[in-house]
Amino acid sequence: MIKVGIIGATGYAGQELVRLLYGHPEVKIIKIISETYIDNKYSYAYRNFTGFSQDSCLALDYETIADGIDVLFTSLPYGVLMEKLNDDILNNVKVIDLGVDYRLMNSTEYKQYYGKDHKSIHLSSRFTYGLCEWNENEIQVAENIANPGCFATAIQLALLPLIKEKIISPDVTVDGKCALSGSGRTLTLGTHFVEANESVKPYKITNHPHKIEARKAIEYFTHEQVKLTFVPHIVPMQRGILVTCYTKPTMKIDHDFIRNIYEKYYHYRQFVQILDRGMYVETKWVRNSNMCHINFEVDEQDNSLIIFAAIDNLIKGAAGQAIQNLNIMNGFPQNMAINYVPTCI
Amino acid sequence: MIKVGIIGATGYAGQELVRLLYGHPEVKIIKIISETYIDNKYSYAYRNFTGFSQDSCLALDYETIADGIDVLFTSLPYGVLMEKLNDDILNNVKVIDLGVDYRLMNSTEYKQYYGKDHKSIHLSSRFTYGLCEWNENEIQVAENIANPGCFATAIQLALLPLIKEKIISPDVTVDGKCALSGSGRTLTLGTHFVEANESVKPYKITNHPHKIEARKAIEYFTHEQVKLTFVPHIVPMQRGILVTCYTKPTMKIDHDFIRNIYEKYYHYRQFVQILDRGMYVETKWVRNSNMCHINFEVDEQDNSLIIFAAIDNLIKGAAGQAIQNLNIMNGFPQNMAINYVPTCI
Amino acid sequence: MIKVGIIGATGYAGQELVRLLYGHPEVKIIKIISETYIDNKYSYAYRNFTGFSQDSCLALDYETIADGIDVLFTSLPYGVLMEKLNDDILNNVKVIDLGVDYRLMNSTEYKQYYGKDHKSIHLSSRFTYGLCEWNENEIQVAENIANPGCFATAIQLALLPLIKEKIISPDVTVDGKCALSGSGRTLTLGTHFVEANESVKPYKITNHPHKIEARKAIEYFTHEQVKLTFVPHIVPMQRGILVTCYTKPTMKIDHDFIRNIYEKYYHYRQFVQILDRGMYVETKWVRNSNMCHINFEVDEQDNSLIIFAAIDNLIKGAAGQAIQNLNIMNGFPQNMAINYVPTCI
Amino acid sequence: MIKVGIIGATGYAGQELVRLLYGHPEVKIIKIISETYIDNKYSYAYRNFTGFSQDSCLALDYETIADGIDVLFTSLPYGVLMEKLNDDILNNVKVIDLGVDYRLMNSTEYKQYYGKDHKSIHLSSRFTYGLCEWNENEIQVAENIANPGCFATAIQLALLPLIKEKIISPDVTVDGKCALSGSGRTLTLGTHFVEANESVKPYKITNHPHKIEARKAIEYFTHEQVKLTFVPHIVPMQRGILVTCYTKPTMKIDHDFIRNIYEKYYHYRQFVQILDRGMYVETKWVRNSNMCHINFEVDEQDNSLIIFAAIDNLIKGAAGQAIQNLNIMNGFPQNMAINYVPTCI
Repeated sequence: MIKVGIIGATGYAGQELVRLLYGHPEVKIIKIISETYIDNKYSYAYRNFTGFSQDSCLALDYETIADGIDVLFTSLPYGVLMEKLNDDILNNVKVIDLGVDYRLMNSTEYKQYYGKDHKSIHLSSRFTYGLCEWNENEIQVAENIANPGCFATAIQLALLPLIKEKIISPDVTVDGKCALSGSGRTLTLGTHFVEANESVKPYKITNHPHKIEARKAIEYFTHEQVKLTFVPHIVPMQRGILVTCYTKPTMKIDHDFIRNIYEKYYHYRQFVQILDRGMYVETKWVRNSNMCHINFEVDEQDNSLIIFAAIDNLIKGAAGQAIQNLNIMNGFPQNMAINYVPTCI
Repeated sequence: MIKVGIIGATGYAGQELVRLLYGHPEVKIIKIISETYIDNKYSYAYRNFTGFSQDSCLALDYETIADGIDVLFTSLPYGVLMEKLNDDILNNVKVIDLGVDYRLMNSTEYKQYYGKDHKSIHLSSRFTYGLCEWNENEIQVAENIANPGCFATAIQLALLPLIKEKIISPDVTVDGKCALSGSGRTLTLGTHFVEANESVKPYKITNHPHKIEARKAIEYFTHEQVKLTFVPHIVPMQRGILVTCYTKPTMKIDHDFIRNIYEKYYHYRQFVQILDRGMYVETKWVRNSNMCHINFEVDEQDNSLIIFAAIDNLIKGAAGQAIQNLNIMNGFPQNMAINYVPTCI
Repeated sequence: MIKVGIIGATGYAGQELVRLLYGHPEVKIIKIISETYIDNKYSYAYRNFTGFSQDSCLALDYETIADGIDVLFTSLPYGVLMEKLNDDILNNVKVIDLGVDYRLMNSTEYKQYYGKDHKSIHLSSRFTYGLCEWNENEIQVAENIANPGCFATAIQLALLPLIKEKIISPDVTVDGKCALSGSGRTLTLGTHFVEANESVKPYKITNHPHKIEARKAIEYFTHEQVKLTFVPHIVPMQRGILVTCYTKPTMKIDHDFIRNIYEKYYHYRQFVQILDRGMYVETKWVRNSNMCHINFEVDEQDNSLIIFAAIDNLIKGAAGQAIQNLNIMNGFPQNMAINYVPTCI
Repeated sequence: MIKVGIIGATGYAGQELVRLLYGHPEVKIIKIISETYIDNKYSYAYRNFTGFSQDSCLALDYETIADGIDVLFTSLPYGVLMEKLNDDILNNVKVIDLGVDYRLMNSTEYKQYYGKDHKSIHLSSRFTYGLCEWNENEIQVAENIANPGCFATAIQLALLPLIKEKIISPDVTVDGKCALSGSGRTLTLGTHFVEANESVKPYKITNHPHKIEARKAIEYFTHEQVKLTFVPHIVPMQRGILVTCYTKPTMKIDHDFIRNIYEKYYHYRQFVQILDRGMYVETKWVRNSNMCHINFEVDEQDNSLIIFAAIDNLIKGAAGQAIQNLNIMNGFPQNMAINYVPTCI
């Protein structure tokens, strides 16, 4: 049994982690850590755990955090973990970080996108970028995992095969749509029900951090430089991300050709499904699951290739992929505890 | 032209007041007061006013509040106005209060339901209860208005004819459903989109203040004592209130008999419509309007009479009725500036 | 391995059955039957099964329906199964019926509530009413199961202990709120998104069939006659049922007394949880699970006891309880394949 | 008084027309035509008209359609009007068509996008394209109006100034998001509440008719050829369209430069508002109004200019603009009967 702790367990991604790990046959949750709910029952913060969990939330103490656990999941707002993490902790526990602090950025890029100096950028080299379908070999031997962001996951799964094979121009426009859970549990006017419901809006128009993450990660996996124009939008729903990728082929293509490219990379991958021609992705078809659906449309007349990818932002875009990483690191079947049919209703 | 000021103009009811008064041909808005947005453009707080309003929000100064205006609308959380209002102000301006502080309660009842000592209970006698369809004569000569609460409005419009005519037992159970805008613009976990969406829940199960208001008001209008069991629920939508009133007839009744009772009281009332037999109320049919829809069902076998009433909580339940009161006080047509067909989509 | 077939597999309850049974370690799905999608892949009707299922939908043939399977789940609109089911079929396969045709009614009651003559009322005696927490012993030896309705399940779980112990008057008012999935997948104007969204409404005001079902079942379990006033409402969300039960105690009660009653019946029941005092049910806390949450409020002043129960209408109110029945019939742990923490987001 | 008739009055755009025209001081509605609700009260089809309208729906008779009216609004699915309209009718009544049949297309283009042969393409020359802010002079003297499509309106209002001034490359990518009311009142699985709620999806990926409309109209207004990549998406809400336009400047630009371009074209236009820098459009800020909000973001580093436009699809994108056209044709103030502050809640 792997003994785990979770920092940030009462955020939305944290709750999904606890919920899914609760059903993991090889995992035992030892520490549920939440600064907001110290000494409260976890089932007080999340009443869906009534009858399932008697655990209480613990305070966060970095001195003793590694004691008694094998793996530490961290799910914190940007800039928090990088202030506290150090080599001592990493020498004593494996970290799977759902936050952004160790995702392939150098200190300049971090400063530019997050407006803060990174206090422990040297630790980044101890983290492996955890995009499971593309980095499996590295993850198997990884010390720690920088779990990819939700938009970055969807963008990469959609684009990597095409960029790797040099099928498309490296100048790509991505329009993203995300559910409200992507904005977290912190109260803001923009996420107040009456303000958010029945409306759609763009946000972080030119500087969304997943833009730099996706760009760096694409370079990491393909050694190609890409120019990414990316605008995320918020749509009034609980869960789900849809990315629409507008690309220009660099050659004559047709539907089957592109399908073969995707098959080459994803044929044996359970969690990436290329939909049949004419079937379009909808976020509901992947809800509550670790699945990524992809479809694409070739416009031969306009020489354009548009790719769509849908994931559940909290699962494949956060907690589910984190567990998939845990499974790979430990030699478990990749789908252990995340092998659920999406709940479309 | 009536010159008006609005305190609490950036709350949801306040915004509806500003929006509707903007289209009132006999009203000029002089003061938009909001402690949250002092010196900001009103169109900054509510961008729907872009291109419509250049006004800025003013600070609240009770010393000078009455200067330059004829009517003051007050839309504040409970317990705020009663601390500041005094005879001096009331001698200089007519107040239409959308808050709860002067709604027929005595100091004991106020303390019981709001947990505070009322600081100006003596002013209550200067306020007329503004349920327009039932208190028109008093409103015409009123000095100030205590505008009814949203649930209280729906409950009274549904029940008053039946209680007045002694058709039903005075022991009534009311199940209320309210949209999220009823909870206001203040940020809370319960009104965070992800927490409130896709869920229905009861709240304030035994002590909702509209219970005492409805009880007192029914007594005021009918001289009957009623025992009211009332549970409000929150449903995931923007606007609308539906009350389901479970009553026991005190005599043999049938559909036409009850319809005649309602017709007697509401036949000439534009804003109360009794739906045809077999048509049920839905909150969408009154959305964005000052309309109240009522339908009822007689179960002769079970000797039961169930009445349904639907209103828009922010209009007939707040800002619209406040304007209707203003119109009555000033001898304008009752429907001036609120004569809108509901927007059902 | 239990070999099962599912009739009505592409309705909403049917889909939940397929989805949950897919994760059942002791079940193998042999026949997925859907008249609407004959010869289509199941993953074409429900694309959430992409990558999970290669099964195709079969036509419905009552002649051969029992061949090769041990258990047949039937999830059909009222009046369909009763036309076709016969002793021959029941002699060859166990049926777990999610429909209403064999739920404790006699032919007169069936006619009154469904407007049709029941064609096989004599088969009712071969069906055991499958309210798991109350009929476990009978279910263990049952031939076939009449799986309870969604509203009826919530109402009974809330009321049975109190009626059994004669704590409350047998004249009960229940106000129900149900999500749109309760109206099924058949297209109607009332379930069209633009018509149903952002609105709440009552329906089937005096004659909802769950009223007779709950009444008959309460009598079956407690030998008490109850008078039930019941109005269901539709609220704009995907899943979930909340019932608010207004009752009159027949004796002096307080909170702890009532809690003890509930504990007596549900202490060892995983799927019925009585919330701590002051915690209120919300449908989201049971979403996607087989859980029922109950809370209650005693109003000693008004001598009133109000009970709230929330379930997921498609799981504890349909597919989940059907699987719980399967488990009990076969001696499996009751929670096999339905032991999921609710997904509150 | 202008006497009007409305064909398709019980569709969503039709209902908005009736609702808004009801408040138009210079218009009298003579004929409400609906094949679905012949001889039913209009308030039966749309109960929001209870207490406002006693009109009944008439059958559609093209022989007598022009009798007794000055203006005929037509709001029909594509391909219906073109089968029936003829010179005789047009000689007797002015038509304002909210449908697509006479919107700048030639017969080849119509066939390509709608898959039908156009039966009365010669009538197109009698229709003026009614994009009010860009074609005012022509509309003033127009015989009949082809009222622009919803997406086409938003796209053109966003792009026309920039294309006209040759600021951007004529190769533009537009990502559109539309509410469910854009899909009309016809029942389909995709617009069933449970299927559409809590999900976002693309549709008509390469062949949305508004693409050809926008392309032709841009050419009509600017004499520039554009290449438009356009993908519409459906988001789970009632009303609203947001378009995100990804463009490449052809020259060095900055924020103020672009703002000046927009000011040049829209400074005196009430219904097009350019938001202050840093303010982003949200569909709620234009809901229930004839307003278009635009904002833009210059990314100097990436040499990219992204423009956002939001409208209410049923008002500025349909009924509101149709009334604006009526007003211009008749010399009324443009905002008569459509001068409403958006209802953001």
